[in-house]
Amino acid sequence: MSGKLDDAGMDLIFREARTHNVWLDQQVSDATLHELYDLMKYGPTSANCSPARIVFVRSREAKERLRPALAKGNVDKTMNAPVTAIIGYDLRFYDRLPELFPHTDARSWFTGKEELADATAKRNGSLQGAYFIIAARAVGLDCGPMSGFDQARVDAEFFAGTDVRSNFLCNLGYGDASALHPRSPRLDFDEACTLL
Amino acid sequence: MSGKLDDAGMDLIFREARTHNVWLDQQVSDATLHELYDLMKYGPTSANCSPARIVFVRSREAKERLRPALAKGNVDKTMNAPVTAIIGYDLRFYDRLPELFPHTDARSWFTGKEELADATAKRNGSLQGAYFIIAARAVGLDCGPMSGFDQARVDAEFFAGTDVRSNFLCNLGYGDASALHPRSPRLDFDEACTLL
Repeated sequence: MSGKLDDAGMDLIFREARTHNVWLDQQVSDATLHELYDLMKYGPTSANCSPARIVFVRSREAKERLRPALAKGNVDKTMNAPVTAIIGYDLRFYDRLPELFPHTDARSWFTGKEELADATAKRNGSLQGAYFIIAARAVGLDCGPMSGFDQARVDAEFFAGTDVRSNFLCNLGYGDASALHPRSPRLDFDEACTLL
Repeated sequence: MSGKLDDAGMDLIFREARTHNVWLDQQVSDATLHELYDLMKYGPTSANCSPARIVFVRSREAKERLRPALAKGNVDKTMNAPVTAIIGYDLRFYDRLPELFPHTDARSWFTGKEELADATAKRNGSLQGAYFIIAARAVGLDCGPMSGFDQARVDAEFFAGTDVRSNFLCNLGYGDASALHPRSPRLDFDEACTLL
């Protein structure tokens, strides 16, 4: 590849994008969710392991299953969001490596190595969680990611009998920009980076 | 925000972007690294905790300090890359919360809670690692992220006496597209996503 993203693109995915808590009355279509996934799936993961698994909670019934697991401060904004994505990761991601990374026996790197598989699922599942946020913004959605929920309860309700575990939640919709507070400060380059 | 990213932008950061292993003889300027950080810093983290810490290894001397920690298959491409970023996270990220999240006492959520702080640093440090990759592509760089290295050795060499730990490495430069292999497959929407 060559070239840079234009200013409008940098604004859309990073500089002007904000975490939203108040949502306009505008639904999110199936087509938009597919478009989101069909971008995020291209983000790189270690050995293309792609451990992220996503549940889009959109119906009223599914939202009510999520409600008891939410931290108190996250209930209203989540119940009001058009969609809440549960971003999870599959601890048995390596069973898909023969298809996803076919040119070598990558599955054997992880079988019986629970600690390595766990760290790999979490690291790469979180990378994919960030690709999800950026891809959502790229397709015109606003995001409200959050960690404030009972992971064990979400796992029991949505992932029982599987090897998938919840990582974080992300509300999706079209945000009400008039409800935003000023953006919090970020660390300067010299506080976060060293150049050797 | 409103609007979507245009097709060229989606191609640049997701659809056409590839992991590179072979680098053109073109250096990466300080200005480009600052531009990269000044985009990635805006990606959202839990309570704006911003745990990522980055060492840009660019000089020959610093590259030689990194060499012994690299997995055998990663040595040549890393030594040849114009820059190798060590993406780390600060386990004491919460000491900065009074500045980063000033409207409440968020520091107290983590003090003395080592397990929560560790999980938060890793999850959010990985989210920021993905923002780093996307921001690098946005400023026109190619990336070669990798997990194949000795984390303890990198930590001892680059983060001794600190609470920073390495997460993954990412080569940066301008890739030689003629050296790319065909892209590996991705999971389909229905394999990775559920819509409830």
